[in-house]
Amino acid sequence: MKIELHSEREFDIIAIGRACIDLNAVEYNRPMEETMTFKKYVGGSPANIVIGMSKLGLKAGFIGKLADDQHGRFIEQYMRGVGVDTTQLVVDREGHKTGLAFTEIKSPEECSILMYRDEVADLYLNPSEVNEAYIKQAKILLVSGTALAKSLSREAVFKAIYLAKKNNVKVIFELDYRGYTWVSPDETSAYYTLVAEQADVVIGTREEFNVMENRTDGSNEDTISHLFKHSPELIVIKHGVEGSYAYTKSGEVFKGYAYLTEVLKTFGAGDSYASAFLYALISNKDIETALKYGSASAAIVVSKHSSSEAMPTVEEIEHLIAEHSKEIVANQ
Amino acid sequence: MKIELHSEREFDIIAIGRACIDLNAVEYNRPMEETMTFKKYVGGSPANIVIGMSKLGLKAGFIGKLADDQHGRFIEQYMRGVGVDTTQLVVDREGHKTGLAFTEIKSPEECSILMYRDEVADLYLNPSEVNEAYIKQAKILLVSGTALAKSLSREAVFKAIYLAKKNNVKVIFELDYRGYTWVSPDETSAYYTLVAEQADVVIGTREEFNVMENRTDGSNEDTISHLFKHSPELIVIKHGVEGSYAYTKSGEVFKGYAYLTEVLKTFGAGDSYASAFLYALISNKDIETALKYGSASAAIVVSKHSSSEAMPTVEEIEHLIAEHSKEIVANQ
Amino acid sequence: MKIELHSEREFDIIAIGRACIDLNAVEYNRPMEETMTFKKYVGGSPANIVIGMSKLGLKAGFIGKLADDQHGRFIEQYMRGVGVDTTQLVVDREGHKTGLAFTEIKSPEECSILMYRDEVADLYLNPSEVNEAYIKQAKILLVSGTALAKSLSREAVFKAIYLAKKNNVKVIFELDYRGYTWVSPDETSAYYTLVAEQADVVIGTREEFNVMENRTDGSNEDTISHLFKHSPELIVIKHGVEGSYAYTKSGEVFKGYAYLTEVLKTFGAGDSYASAFLYALISNKDIETALKYGSASAAIVVSKHSSSEAMPTVEEIEHLIAEHSKEIVANQ
Amino acid sequence: MKIELHSEREFDIIAIGRACIDLNAVEYNRPMEETMTFKKYVGGSPANIVIGMSKLGLKAGFIGKLADDQHGRFIEQYMRGVGVDTTQLVVDREGHKTGLAFTEIKSPEECSILMYRDEVADLYLNPSEVNEAYIKQAKILLVSGTALAKSLSREAVFKAIYLAKKNNVKVIFELDYRGYTWVSPDETSAYYTLVAEQADVVIGTREEFNVMENRTDGSNEDTISHLFKHSPELIVIKHGVEGSYAYTKSGEVFKGYAYLTEVLKTFGAGDSYASAFLYALISNKDIETALKYGSASAAIVVSKHSSSEAMPTVEEIEHLIAEHSKEIVANQ
Repeated sequence: MKIELHSEREFDIIAIGRACIDLNAVEYNRPMEETMTFKKYVGGSPANIVIGMSKLGLKAGFIGKLADDQHGRFIEQYMRGVGVDTTQLVVDREGHKTGLAFTEIKSPEECSILMYRDEVADLYLNPSEVNEAYIKQAKILLVSGTALAKSLSREAVFKAIYLAKKNNVKVIFELDYRGYTWVSPDETSAYYTLVAEQADVVIGTREEFNVMENRTDGSNEDTISHLFKHSPELIVIKHGVEGSYAYTKSGEVFKGYAYLTEVLKTFGAGDSYASAFLYALISNKDIETALKYGSASAAIVVSKHSSSEAMPTVEEIEHLIAEHSKEIVANQ
Repeated sequence: MKIELHSEREFDIIAIGRACIDLNAVEYNRPMEETMTFKKYVGGSPANIVIGMSKLGLKAGFIGKLADDQHGRFIEQYMRGVGVDTTQLVVDREGHKTGLAFTEIKSPEECSILMYRDEVADLYLNPSEVNEAYIKQAKILLVSGTALAKSLSREAVFKAIYLAKKNNVKVIFELDYRGYTWVSPDETSAYYTLVAEQADVVIGTREEFNVMENRTDGSNEDTISHLFKHSPELIVIKHGVEGSYAYTKSGEVFKGYAYLTEVLKTFGAGDSYASAFLYALISNKDIETALKYGSASAAIVVSKHSSSEAMPTVEEIEHLIAEHSKEIVANQ
Repeated sequence: MKIELHSEREFDIIAIGRACIDLNAVEYNRPMEETMTFKKYVGGSPANIVIGMSKLGLKAGFIGKLADDQHGRFIEQYMRGVGVDTTQLVVDREGHKTGLAFTEIKSPEECSILMYRDEVADLYLNPSEVNEAYIKQAKILLVSGTALAKSLSREAVFKAIYLAKKNNVKVIFELDYRGYTWVSPDETSAYYTLVAEQADVVIGTREEFNVMENRTDGSNEDTISHLFKHSPELIVIKHGVEGSYAYTKSGEVFKGYAYLTEVLKTFGAGDSYASAFLYALISNKDIETALKYGSASAAIVVSKHSSSEAMPTVEEIEHLIAEHSKEIVANQ
Repeated sequence: MKIELHSEREFDIIAIGRACIDLNAVEYNRPMEETMTFKKYVGGSPANIVIGMSKLGLKAGFIGKLADDQHGRFIEQYMRGVGVDTTQLVVDREGHKTGLAFTEIKSPEECSILMYRDEVADLYLNPSEVNEAYIKQAKILLVSGTALAKSLSREAVFKAIYLAKKNNVKVIFELDYRGYTWVSPDETSAYYTLVAEQADVVIGTREEFNVMENRTDGSNEDTISHLFKHSPELIVIKHGVEGSYAYTKSGEVFKGYAYLTEVLKTFGAGDSYASAFLYALISNKDIETALKYGSASAAIVVSKHSSSEAMPTVEEIEHLIAEHSKEIVANQ
């Protein structure tokens, strides 16, 4: 099965949601209390994904709201610098801040994030700032779950989905769940369900699908059985090192495997996975290949220091896949 | 066309949303500044509708949240007294208040309402307080637009709709727009659209449909053309004294006429209309007849002092319709 | 001892704080659930006090903020009607509401109030709306504790006190504690202490002084020992039916006795007490006489239905005092 | 004139207020957009002052609230490491954050700060967390103006001042005005005035005194004429490079001069000034000498990268003063 995309569109993908600042520990393998220097990168799941896709040669755009300060301007400059269209990045005029994520890397297995998400500009994106003429130029609209956490950003996303469906733009929903910004599990579940039912492709970890279903013991079978009654054609459920599963409405199931690499930290795995997986779909590759692209891209990013700058090129991804194929042949 | 309802259900209708207190001017035909005494009634659109339907002989239930005070207890006692099932009326434990509506009747044409809707208990209904076992006992779930104005009531309504659709309960969406509680037109439009697309029947005034569409110059044709692409089977659009239109998905259009009566005030017209219209649908009458029931019920309520206590019986409605039929015959 | 007041001032008293609406049960001696009709009066401690003093023949003014609605306009009209200067009653332009108090009279001993104090206009009085030219025309500034419950009203009161002291206007602090509007006992205690230390006269019940001291077992001795180190010259502590005590900085103590009357409800006792007590002070009577005026006025108001309209005249007060003097003589 | 301090107290100084994180540009003399690395320091005016005083050999303690995260723990560890007593640093349990200040150094003359102050832990210090037994062990209580910006921190400061005055602890008020956290100039003015009137020593820039007086054209004469009617004995008003003035209640005026140095950035000048000035007062030096200590300390800190770590020793301060005295002699 392949996802049928509109072929005559200026943008391969337009993402909507948060773009913020990662402050990554320069001195790592220690608690953050002992880290004295931090390096600044652009961060935020949908921003990382479009930066990754831009690096893979696709034409990407972004709809979002930035703080009217040095961090906001840095984000715009950086994204523009890597080729992302930033004409729909609105500047907040009400004093809201850029979201921050300080990363702590105690060890490759013990990573955590200290988030600053109070009164952040991205959650103040307004429905009136979502533009139909822009969205209708895209093959794909990528929606990030975090943008649903608060009004008015939440309603801006609903409007974007409404416009995408009206204009035959495929909607990809990346669950991207960040507990910090949500008030209650009931609220998260309500909006995740509403959006997932309207999306064409849904991507998330098993834990994130559990959040959507407001249960702790969800199963992939229940998840797909419910969602395939609605709009989705393709559902990707990630199970960490055990790999991932792609389900199609027509009943196919594909399994993807994680590539073993030297892990520096776990941040950025999901975003790099999504960007390469979507790259493959847009490039008209089959789903099995897309799963390999996702895994390879994730393996590369977790071995490096950042989430955005570390995004690989097509050559790097294909090189990793080829290397591992040889190993597999050699091991047979 | 008739709406196919599940025949084996304990409740004809279950409504979700606000129940509050009306304080109606005892001395009227003057500005409220000169009114010194107020009479207390139960109010709130969905509460009025189920009270009306209960009086029409149907079995009705209510899902809502009441303040833990004398006004909250009065509402529960009154609704129970007229036969409404109040087992799902949850008592708020966080100090929220009962919504109030002081009515001013300067003249039959100049009526206004002074609303108290800050921190009201009904908007704190929680998704976890919405019960699947209860909803699946109903033929119809009535959703009132005001309940969408704030979290968590908003998410409680989304959950109720999700459970209704899962259990083959028809969803009626009464737009019931009250500007006071909403933050922005964009927000209202986003949620009204989401709910209307999922409902089986949508009822509102032309002005309320304009609010849903976030435009001032909406047309019935545009409205039905959009909504009939989604779930709705029946859409009723009211145009005040010019009457109302009922549109079916299969392409029928019915016009209903307003009955002329002596008007004391305009409050309660919409609620009494909805209760009698829905009564007729549930009683398996055709849509033309249902439109007459709605108009007759509205005509009776606007000639009386309250919205809830004034709800007519079936005999009163049928008597008014019969009287007017004679006039029409006489006029021919 | 007498309080030395500036003799050449246009206003005997200017009060600052809340003016709101009382909705008193027309059918009483029952739970409010069974009361179907409510009668509207102006209410709020400082408003009642100046209405009472105006009725006693003094020249009073009021600084406050009113909702831009029918209730707000009624308050202004009523106060103006009884002779209070309302030129400093500012109209709120941000949609805030008039505070409400529904009174429940189960029996003379069991009275309670259902308060609506969320987002009320009076708490939005702004320091910039407090006018030095106005305050300096007064002999006395009356500050009500409730006005300290929230910013910006709180800061408006601090500014008024600052201006009063600068212009040799005596500051009377009526503790008027209403738990509903306060966030924490620590907060209340902090501001009550700050204001009491700056006031010239402090009036409250023993329970209210305990709130100020953030303890449950306060004693009059501790209270006066602390406050007389600061500005206060006169402190009145009320102990309900046991009567009240007036302490002067110079060491005098006066005891006042409650008059026995037929009690309809307990509301309004404190306000009528304060208005007659202050009337007596302003009229240059001694403290013992002032205590009698306060008690007589309270006795009259608790036998009637409202708090504001029931405020007695000088004749009624003096008549009651005279009657009781005869009884006492007769009993000797 | 000298300030009479209690000689038998365990702590020379206890400060109350914010302790937070500075993130200083590693690559500077450029806009922050081009700074890619930030170095972490403890920051916040009262924290800097006690760190400075501890380095000068005094015994200092701190009352404040820290986030329950890596930044909060770093602050506690650092302050403890330089000898500050941290037993009264409470850990917030409600998810509040550590305040942040990103510093931008475009040039020595163009410095700015990007503040993160939404929902910061320090503003949630609670009056119940202020301990009389602790405060009464101090010679001096240092109050920072920023701690007055919000409830409950504001009320915690009022309680601390109340306890200080009760226990004969001198109150120093450092105006430390940060516009970002305040809602309105009226509010700032109200609380700055209340605290300044109760303090024994008040220190601030001319601009900060203007904020206190809610005017743009304040004069030192007006300021001292008002404040000397209340508690203050000593008032220090700083005029940037023009130097500073110290006024005593008994009528003396001292002028202090700024030392010329190579300036890297302007941050930290006020805090280093205050710490050395107070050190001199506590060490029983006269006011003229104290002014020199303040200026010398400020000159040293503005030539270095941080505000806290750069705090000088007594030797460095006295060396600078001596060097400059030679120059002055040489220039005569």
